[in-house]
This record gives sequence, structure tokens and C-alpha cells, in this order.
Amino acid sequence: MKRPVITLLTDFGLADHYVAAMKGVILAICPEVQLVDISHEITPYAIPEAAYTLAQTWKLYPKGTTHVAVVDPGVGSSRRAIVVEFAGHRFIAPDNGVLGMVLDAAAQGKVRAKIREISTIRYFRRPVSQTFHGRDVFAPVAAHLAKGIGLASLGRPILDPVLGGFTKPTQLAPNLWAGVVLKTDRFGNVITNLEWNSFSSIARGPFRLKFGRRTVTRFHHTYDAAPPDRLFALRGSSGYLEVSLRRESAAADLGVLSGSPFELVL
Amino acid sequence: MKRPVITLLTDFGLADHYVAAMKGVILAICPEVQLVDISHEITPYAIPEAAYTLAQTWKLYPKGTTHVAVVDPGVGSSRRAIVVEFAGHRFIAPDNGVLGMVLDAAAQGKVRAKIREISTIRYFRRPVSQTFHGRDVFAPVAAHLAKGIGLASLGRPILDPVLGGFTKPTQLAPNLWAGVVLKTDRFGNVITNLEWNSFSSIARGPFRLKFGRRTVTRFHHTYDAAPPDRLFALRGSSGYLEVSLRRESAAADLGVLSGSPFELVL
Amino acid sequence: MKRPVITLLTDFGLADHYVAAMKGVILAICPEVQLVDISHEITPYAIPEAAYTLAQTWKLYPKGTTHVAVVDPGVGSSRRAIVVEFAGHRFIAPDNGVLGMVLDAAAQGKVRAKIREISTIRYFRRPVSQTFHGRDVFAPVAAHLAKGIGLASLGRPILDPVLGGFTKPTQLAPNLWAGVVLKTDRFGNVITNLEWNSFSSIARGPFRLKFGRRTVTRFHHTYDAAPPDRLFALRGSSGYLEVSLRRESAAADLGVLSGSPFELVL
Repeated sequence: MKRPVITLLTDFGLADHYVAAMKGVILAICPEVQLVDISHEITPYAIPEAAYTLAQTWKLYPKGTTHVAVVDPGVGSSRRAIVVEFAGHRFIAPDNGVLGMVLDAAAQGKVRAKIREISTIRYFRRPVSQTFHGRDVFAPVAAHLAKGIGLASLGRPILDPVLGGFTKPTQLAPNLWAGVVLKTDRFGNVITNLEWNSFSSIARGPFRLKFGRRTVTRFHHTYDAAPPDRLFALRGSSGYLEVSLRRESAAADLGVLSGSPFELVL
Repeated sequence: MKRPVITLLTDFGLADHYVAAMKGVILAICPEVQLVDISHEITPYAIPEAAYTLAQTWKLYPKGTTHVAVVDPGVGSSRRAIVVEFAGHRFIAPDNGVLGMVLDAAAQGKVRAKIREISTIRYFRRPVSQTFHGRDVFAPVAAHLAKGIGLASLGRPILDPVLGGFTKPTQLAPNLWAGVVLKTDRFGNVITNLEWNSFSSIARGPFRLKFGRRTVTRFHHTYDAAPPDRLFALRGSSGYLEVSLRRESAAADLGVLSGSPFELVL
Repeated sequence: MKRPVITLLTDFGLADHYVAAMKGVILAICPEVQLVDISHEITPYAIPEAAYTLAQTWKLYPKGTTHVAVVDPGVGSSRRAIVVEFAGHRFIAPDNGVLGMVLDAAAQGKVRAKIREISTIRYFRRPVSQTFHGRDVFAPVAAHLAKGIGLASLGRPILDPVLGGFTKPTQLAPNLWAGVVLKTDRFGNVITNLEWNSFSSIARGPFRLKFGRRTVTRFHHTYDAAPPDRLFALRGSSGYLEVSLRRESAAADLGVLSGSPFELVL
């Protein structure tokens, strides 16, 4: 029998018991599941970073995979939980923008995403705690989906999910954009929200990327081609423009974090 | 075929090869196993933190699961290794209190736990190193249990396992308790050893939680209901009273760590 | 059906999406695979540390396991990718020394390792990015190997793989060796490149291990036997001589890192 895949993305970290609690709940409902960790080291409450991380991975997984994303600063408040079905994948998350890039991809395609509120408490672990919906709502619902229940049994369709609003830069003038750092990775690469397909001209002509007082004007096609001590832009494997410093941290050198603003002048 | 589940809880971290060595030994003996990490980021040698983390997760797993907990400051000394069977789960650990909360739960229930020393070297990886019983004793014994050997083949029954002694506060006066911080989590929540079921009255009446010179007197039911800059107590998803600071670290603000003492005045 | 095992060893960390991207690619090609993380917390670009970590684990896994090791400072340059078959295991890595200890073990044995360049782009994910061969080359090739393709279909045999050159100390005089720290672990143990089988005499006679101005002259058989505040050497579970400080970090006390030099005087 083919084993259903459930992926988990949270800001819970790996030191605490939270992720293992979710996995126990899932295995008790659906023992044949294949569990895969996307990441549990999302910066706490950093919804854009989680949305970006999910966007970089979900399409690589087999169709039929259920993706659970729990970055949830509003847990215990009245924020909704949602389930999305798109391109043969299912997504479960709080309705706070963490699925923003998935919904963005759906909006650009021909196939509409199905979106429903998750409200059928029959599929929850009860009593539902005020503070840990990962264990009590998202994990059991994912396990039931992996076992084969239909989306329609989870709750009513909704048309107004919370979108990200952080996926693209804002054009301020014909040659000027205001962007945001989506994430800085372990190697210190700075991942911008400039999609390569829209901004590939910077490989061929002059540009300025301004991070506060610092400006990046070089472009290289590979890490290896860059001199060791000069910041440069490159086409990241992510599909976004990244800023790097060979064998050192561009993020530390620039003093930027996920969410930091920058400007692009073409 | 249903796949047996083995969970792993250690203070080995994820950077080194220790956890992967245990997994290789297990897979070589029992290839059909489903391996799940509870946590490998327990503070080194912190037995109460490990005991608490195990207590928060094991009941969520399917019956038949084998739980391996290796936090083992006495490795290489004469401390015993033990196996416990309780409520359909098996537990393997050094006999140093890491199973304290499991044994505590068993002592409160109607069903006695079966406890045996692990001494049958036939099930060990040999030669047994002086310093890495996770690989040479605990992993292979867990794999053999998952494959179906009985508890009785591992060694003689024992009646005097090491208990935790850290699971409950000490009552010093009719309205005064001395407690201990079990753990501080990634979000800076401070998890006390005050079980909610015994101390839920603080939701309704005045109380003082004293951490050194600092005193906490507020209670909220959710993170969301609390003002951003004031310490408050809440009922944690753990079943214990926790102290939190909305979107900041209560642990850093109070300067406490796992093991720090506090007083409760009711 | 027995599930093929693929192990993953990288310096990608667990915060970013890189490891999860590799896992998605593998599962989409070979859904029945058993994925195991060796470590993703190798110090970035630290080839000797990765080689050591792989050497400590691969033999423990079942025959037929495919081991993927991606520590790849030269990604995007002309460095080769290689596949090695030895002792019933397969290894996939950039040709930069990360398989140095595997090839060293093969050179000492009677059975030659089979070594091939990986160049058959049919098994790659295309287009192959300049910066992320873990996702686009190593992961899909591992999945196809796990599914059963033969080594010969991946590329031509090669005879000149890059070897480590860091696995053994250099003898400078009859009683003097220059060594290198392979790794410092989470507990602060300092793992040297002195193999126990060649240097076990230090358990019986006088020796000096010189780390800069600091000298270690004590040996103990277990952590437990050592006084709390004195550095000592012991036979590590790794098979190498290690330097430890009971319940504290010998690495921090000595101020050494992976790659730090030392001298042994016998």
C-alpha cells in the first residue's frame, strides 16, 4: 500500500515536545503515514518566512501529500483554521497568511483552489486546549485527511482567506521598487521578494540594491565566480534574487533580518 | 503489516552522529520500524526536563510503541538500565529518574507497571563501549522489543527504580508551596511543576508566584487576552501552570532556567 | 516489501527548506523509501567533520542503504559528483573529500570500492540550478539508486577520487605526532584524529597532548572516574582518542574547534 505523506512546518523548534506531540496524535489516527519535517525552526511568529519555506517545498512532494503549517500567533483567539486543496495537494493552517504564497500561486493559475474553514469538531482532539491547536486541531485533521475523508466534511467553503501581501515588491516609480527580505538562511544568504522571472534584467545591466546605507551593485552566476569579500546578487535556487558573500554571511554583513526593507533601483 | 513505532528522546543534539548511530542499529535489527524523534535537544544531563518531555508525549502515541529515553550522566558507571511496561507502552532508559513521571503515573493508577533490569547481553551490540550505551544497549534492546521479544527475556524484575522526586511542589505551610521550574520552552514560557488539576483555584482568586524578587499575580486564559508587557500565569497545554509574557520570553525576563526554585502563596 | 533506506548528511541546517526540498524530490521518485537524517548541522563547508560523521554511522545501517552526503563549497564549479559502492552500501557526494574516510576504509580492505562519476543527466531534476545540487542532482540520483538502477548507468568509472588526507596524524619524529581535531561535539568532547587502535599505549604510559600552551597528561577509562575539573583523555565511543572535561566543555576550555592542530608526545 502506498503510504500517505504528511509534512509538518512550525515555529515550535525541536527542543520542546510540541512537534512530537503532533506526531503522536497523527500516528495514533493514521499509523501508515509517512511523516516529513519541512522545518520547525521558523522564526517564532514569522508568517512570511513560513509562507516562503512552504512555497519552496510543497510542489516537490508527491500529489496527495497533506501539508500542515502551524505558525500561529493568534492561537486561542477567534482566528479561523482553514484547509486548502490545490494542484493535488492539501494544506492545513491557521488563516493568517501562512498559506499566502500557495493561494498566490493558485490565483495565478487556471485551476481554482478549494478553500474551507475547519470547524467540524468531530475530527479534533478533545478537549481542545486554548494554546496548542497544533496537537488538538491541525494534527488530527491532517491525519483524518490522510486517511481519506473529504474536504467538505471539515467545514463550509470560504472566499476571503487571509492573503500574505508580502510576496511581491511595491513599485514606487518607473525604476524604483520597495522590497522586503523574505528570509536569511543558514549560510547568510539574503533572500529578497524579487522574483527572478520579473527581475532577471539585473544579470545584464546596472542595478542598485540599497539596504540602508549599503548598496549592492555586482551580479555573479555562481558563488564560485565571486571574489571572497564583496557582496553580490545572484539567482538563488529559490527562484528569487538573493544577496550573498562568498563563504561569509551577507545577512550579518548587511545587518538585515527576515522582514527588513530594501530598495531596488534599475 | 502494521509498523512498530520507536520514539527516541536524548540530550545528544542533532549536530553529532549519536542519534543517527542509534537509528542505524535499530534499522539493521528491525527494518520495518517507524522511527520518531521526541527531542534530542534536552539540556545535557537534565533529567527532570527529559522526564517532563516524555510525560507530555508518550500517551499520544499508539499502544505498542517503544519509547527510548537516554539522558545518562552516569554512563559507564554501575547505574542500571531498566525497561518499564505500562498502559500498553514500553519504556527503556537508564535507571536515574528519567522515567520518573511515567512511574509516577503508574503509581497513581490501578494497573501496576512491570519493571525489569536490562541485563541480557545477548541483545546488546558488542563490545559494549564505556561511553555510548545509547548505541550499544538502548537502541538494540528497543529494536528487539519492537520485533516482539518479551520483557521477561531482558532481565529480572526490580521493585526499587529511581523515582524523580521533582514532579510535585513541596507544601511548606497551609498556603505556601515551594516549586521547581520543570522547563523553559522556545517561546520563553516557564513551565512549573504545579499541576493544573491541583492548583486551578489561582484562575479564580488572588495568588503570588515568587521567582526571587519578582512576583507574578495576574492570570489570563489565553495569550491573546494578556497585555504585551506584563507577566501572567496561564493554564498551559501541558497540564501545568505556566508563566508567560506575550510575544516575549518570560524565562529571560525572570532569569529562570529548568530547575530554578519558586514559591507559590495562595 | 522491505523499504530501501536513504540517509542524508548535509551542512544545510534544519531551519531552511533545503533538506525538505531534497526529501520531497526523493519521495516523489521513490515513495516507499525510509528516510533517515544523519546530521544537517555539520559546520558549513567542514569536509573533515562531515567525513568523520559519515564514518561513525554508515556501517551501522543495513546493507543496501544509500548514503547521501552534501557538503559542497564548490557547488556550481566544475567539481565532479561521484557514487561509491563499498561493502554493500552506496554513497553519493561531491568529489571533494567528504567520502575520504569511506575510501580510506576501502583502501585498507580486500574488497575494492567501485567509484563512478555521476554524469547521466537523465536522472537529474532539470533544469539543474547552479547553487542547489542537493535537490537537483544528489537527491534524485539517490532515489533512482534506491529504486534499483545500477551504478554503471550513472557515469564512467574513475580512479582518482579526491581523498581526505585528514584522517591520520603526521609522524614528525619517533615520539612526536602532529594531529588535527576532527570535531568537537555537543558535550564539548574534543575528538582527535588519533585512532585508538594505533595509540592505545597512552592508557598505560606517560603522554602529553599539547593544544597550544595547554597540555593534557591524564587518562581515564570512563567519564565517571575523572575528577570534575581536570582535562583528561579517554577512548571515545568513536574509536578515536578524545579529550574531555567531566560535565563541562573540554573544547571551550582548550579553545579548540574542528580543524585545530595539536601535538602528541609519547
